[in-house]
Amino acid sequence: MSCPSTWSRDRYDPIKLLSKQEAEAIERELLEDYRFGKQQLIEIFGHACAVAVTKVFPLSSLPKKQPTVLVICGPEQNGAIGLVCARHLRVYDYEPTIFYPKRSLNSLYQDFTTQCEKMDIPFLSYLPTEVQLINDAYNLVVDAILGLETDPTTVKEPFAGILTTLKQIKLPLVSLDIPSGWDAETGHSEGITPEVLVSLTAPKKCATQFLGKHHFVAGRFLPYDLQKKFELNLPVYSGAECVIQL
Amino acid sequence: MSCPSTWSRDRYDPIKLLSKQEAEAIERELLEDYRFGKQQLIEIFGHACAVAVTKVFPLSSLPKKQPTVLVICGPEQNGAIGLVCARHLRVYDYEPTIFYPKRSLNSLYQDFTTQCEKMDIPFLSYLPTEVQLINDAYNLVVDAILGLETDPTTVKEPFAGILTTLKQIKLPLVSLDIPSGWDAETGHSEGITPEVLVSLTAPKKCATQFLGKHHFVAGRFLPYDLQKKFELNLPVYSGAECVIQL
Repeated sequence: MSCPSTWSRDRYDPIKLLSKQEAEAIERELLEDYRFGKQQLIEIFGHACAVAVTKVFPLSSLPKKQPTVLVICGPEQNGAIGLVCARHLRVYDYEPTIFYPKRSLNSLYQDFTTQCEKMDIPFLSYLPTEVQLINDAYNLVVDAILGLETDPTTVKEPFAGILTTLKQIKLPLVSLDIPSGWDAETGHSEGITPEVLVSLTAPKKCATQFLGKHHFVAGRFLPYDLQKKFELNLPVYSGAECVIQL
Repeated sequence: MSCPSTWSRDRYDPIKLLSKQEAEAIERELLEDYRFGKQQLIEIFGHACAVAVTKVFPLSSLPKKQPTVLVICGPEQNGAIGLVCARHLRVYDYEPTIFYPKRSLNSLYQDFTTQCEKMDIPFLSYLPTEVQLINDAYNLVVDAILGLETDPTTVKEPFAGILTTLKQIKLPLVSLDIPSGWDAETGHSEGITPEVLVSLTAPKKCATQFLGKHHFVAGRFLPYDLQKKFELNLPVYSGAECVIQL
């Protein structure tokens, strides 16, 4: 009771940039020692990502008449977080459309998919290669394609093609955790250039190469002992906010 | 895409008060048709309840020097929501203490318990019968004891005794979903008198007898089709808020 996250450290310590190994170790501790559930973590992160979108792109600020958002989801956990993000965006009166070309066989991810389908969020069956069609249809794109676990040197189709498309579009990109196609530690000099990055738990080392305007951290639920053990030096969230902008 | 929750109904329709049967039917549809998970729903509701507490009792407003909160959890789902609420209150820099006299054997609820224990939230081994001790130690009490499923005419120990204690304390009570010991439909004229009620999904019929100052609804994630089918007439949430005060 005597160690709230904001009291016992020097506030001027820089926020930790996680290696891939550290990020995986934190998730393992959350799941194994703290008994958090995958479903629970994905729900918390997806919700926070949607809240971050509302902060940078409030409904009233969107350039298109319809508050459309394209959410592109990959087959792993990053994609499942994207599905939850899309669902919350729908609840916040955005009009998300999901592109989810490689559906997971994981029953948990399938449940998140069903929640979106049953809430009448449309799913695209293919992504137009003509980028102007995407530019015209959406206000922004949420990149929930490839996460920490992906080796960026071996990105296969359809994701390599999707990343090529994303490099050409003129819409703001919101990347979840790490920009897709980047190496979690070394980044990717020729990769996509998101305007918004939502780091989950804490930023990864590649975040030093993020040059977009808005960098959020989501993961306020993190136990204090874990923050301390990994010396995360997370910034101080205000009120009941679930994200904080760096 | 054409039916956001706020557009296609008369905003002046009164909010629906659910019968026990309707509340159970909504939860069944969420779990079976929409494929929401119990873990996910409990996390969403518990988070929203903690947010409601921060709205009525911000840290700066608390009368005691320490921001203490007593969270009393029952053995069923209501208690699990209380555990999640306590965990989020901890993250918001409150100092919750949990009293959880009948622990569930449900592994999901055990995981929520472990999350609290491993985050160093203290658990009381018994509740003082001397109410002055409670009045002196805490700023408020969260009542997550008995939910919809409980028949208030057959409340057993230790819960009957706890309710007797709660009727005598002078602290504000926050009840989750329905005040413990009340019948979900008819209420309970001699029951506890919470100052705050956080209705989950939609208010139950007994809410007409709630005379406290603050009535919140939590359950913004509810699919629009479900809201329509059960004619919930939920009020319009603002921004990315997860609760709304009636």
